[in-house]
Amino acid sequence: MRIHGKSTRTIWLAADGAGVEIIDQTRLPHDFVVLRLDTLEDAERAIGEMWVRGAPLIGATAAYGVALALRAGQTDERLDEACRRLLATRPTAVNLRWALDDMRSVLRTLAPEKRLAAAYERAARISDEDVAMNAALGEHGAGILRDLWEKRRAAGADRLNVLTHCNAGWLATVDWGTALAPVYKAHEAGIPLHVWVDETRPRNQGASLTACELNWHGVAHTVIVDNAGGHLMQHGLVDVCIVGTDRTTATGDVCNKIGTYLKALAARDNDVPFYVGLPGPTIDWTIEDGIRQIPIEERDPAEVTHISGRDPAGRRVSIQLTPDGSGAVNYGFDVTPARLVTGLITERGVCPASRRGLLSLYPEKRPHV
Amino acid sequence: MRIHGKSTRTIWLAADGAGVEIIDQTRLPHDFVVLRLDTLEDAERAIGEMWVRGAPLIGATAAYGVALALRAGQTDERLDEACRRLLATRPTAVNLRWALDDMRSVLRTLAPEKRLAAAYERAARISDEDVAMNAALGEHGAGILRDLWEKRRAAGADRLNVLTHCNAGWLATVDWGTALAPVYKAHEAGIPLHVWVDETRPRNQGASLTACELNWHGVAHTVIVDNAGGHLMQHGLVDVCIVGTDRTTATGDVCNKIGTYLKALAARDNDVPFYVGLPGPTIDWTIEDGIRQIPIEERDPAEVTHISGRDPAGRRVSIQLTPDGSGAVNYGFDVTPARLVTGLITERGVCPASRRGLLSLYPEKRPHV
Repeated sequence: MRIHGKSTRTIWLAADGAGVEIIDQTRLPHDFVVLRLDTLEDAERAIGEMWVRGAPLIGATAAYGVALALRAGQTDERLDEACRRLLATRPTAVNLRWALDDMRSVLRTLAPEKRLAAAYERAARISDEDVAMNAALGEHGAGILRDLWEKRRAAGADRLNVLTHCNAGWLATVDWGTALAPVYKAHEAGIPLHVWVDETRPRNQGASLTACELNWHGVAHTVIVDNAGGHLMQHGLVDVCIVGTDRTTATGDVCNKIGTYLKALAARDNDVPFYVGLPGPTIDWTIEDGIRQIPIEERDPAEVTHISGRDPAGRRVSIQLTPDGSGAVNYGFDVTPARLVTGLITERGVCPASRRGLLSLYPEKRPHV
Repeated sequence: MRIHGKSTRTIWLAADGAGVEIIDQTRLPHDFVVLRLDTLEDAERAIGEMWVRGAPLIGATAAYGVALALRAGQTDERLDEACRRLLATRPTAVNLRWALDDMRSVLRTLAPEKRLAAAYERAARISDEDVAMNAALGEHGAGILRDLWEKRRAAGADRLNVLTHCNAGWLATVDWGTALAPVYKAHEAGIPLHVWVDETRPRNQGASLTACELNWHGVAHTVIVDNAGGHLMQHGLVDVCIVGTDRTTATGDVCNKIGTYLKALAARDNDVPFYVGLPGPTIDWTIEDGIRQIPIEERDPAEVTHISGRDPAGRRVSIQLTPDGSGAVNYGFDVTPARLVTGLITERGVCPASRRGLLSLYPEKRPHV
């Protein structure tokens, strides 16, 4: 997407063709800092310290991390060590494992002297494939937004109001995003969009990252507290919700950032369509019941009791919100049952949130009879 | 309620019988500061700068403010001026107008030399009436909690989990609170309660005030982000919700802090009872349709883009959460339709959230035929 008019990905090869550059996302939204990665250690820190985040971007960074590691040696041992160390940076990220397995299986079959160039090439391909998948997802989603906009325009509206939760945008992927890819594609097609951005406590990925990237790209948006979406929907101020997902079951239950379920309930109660943008690889075909079977990560309570931002002097500080002596819990995700989801937007098209719907797009996943 | 074991109201006559003391609620939860009010100007600032907040407490403070004003003169002009100036401190607060009308109508009929003593007496009575009303509401609500606890205990539970939103507690009233009065009464009756405290963005009255008063009084509680309640309910971790209300329609629609509606939807989706604690005076008998007829206050967007808390050095600071260039909107309240409310807990008993239910408790409000 664009930053101050310049097309930018979230990870790119440096001008010298050796280093890799990323945006330090921990400094957003207040500071835009590009960091250069030159070594395996740099890539480990970039993932481990969350300079990059979002499953697809983590996968692409890990792939480039293998290439950076091979600059210091191309033996089997070096390759294996790089994959092992990169995998350990965020142990639960599915794309991370997938990207590393892919890199390792491709490079292992090559003679050591051919591995360095092949690693850069393969990492670039992993990045490009993410971009292509999200762009396709975006086109399918933009079709939905176009249809909704035609109806709203006919009814006299001057803009189409989209609500999103958390950040499933450009910054979580290599480009385009997942939930936000349809928004960017529709924006480029000239549809007058306005996005309600849930701030998404406790980590505020909406208020910081989603607001930031929409701001850069020039998409009209307004930040709201997570509590506000129901009121907006009651008053006809939301035309459609689109969120991302960390994991979707074979039956269409959607695991996403905590609070997504509450917005889906409000959407249903007010007849607002509720869509989920998901790349095919995030479907977990082994799981049937999202609420019963998906374990929900409990994160550090300090994310609830404290929050960080920019003080009047421009410094980033963390402040305490709760009284001493009051504890907190911090569940990272919740599960929105398929019954509340209007449709799933994938790189292959849009389908109902059901086993039948998903299999219509991914027929190769049909159980063998 | 108790602070460090000592029974304390939120407003009380100073030991000399002339000044009035309050807790500076803007300093909570990090600092406990008692302020003494001696003049009309002090009372104006206490309300205007939100050292005291919550409709019932504002009403009591205004009543005492009239008494303080009369220390400097007891003429009709002085009385009228005091009422006029106090009314202007928070123009939309219903209890404020009610308390001032009550003080003025009582004092106007008395000879000036009798007004000062009568003003103190009447202000004390307004305070005591608030305490009595909330205590009665609390007893009725505690009955509900007792019944729920019996069932949960029979099912092997070791505690009863209550979820509340915002602060409709002791700190918003003279004593007991509204939504929290049943919690305190049940706690005193020995029921092992645990309260999930929604932080309640943007002003975080839950994380600061509700957590604070439960902490002081010794009621087990855990702070959660506003996004978490749906997940907790899906997993059987909430036995009952109780919230307060700023205004309830004659048909039982409940206007309360923004985000209440989302919790009511989750409660309904998971068969969790959803109660509202409301003193009779907050019922607006002139309104039928809460969503269509209750205007929702839009507050300063800075409450969304910024938040304040305690920095590591112990200073209170405000920090910016959103990027420069991203706007915000800030709706203060939402309306929960009566169909989502299990029951209304009033000082006269518990009733269904419906016209018929409310009229069964307030038969004097029946339209004259």
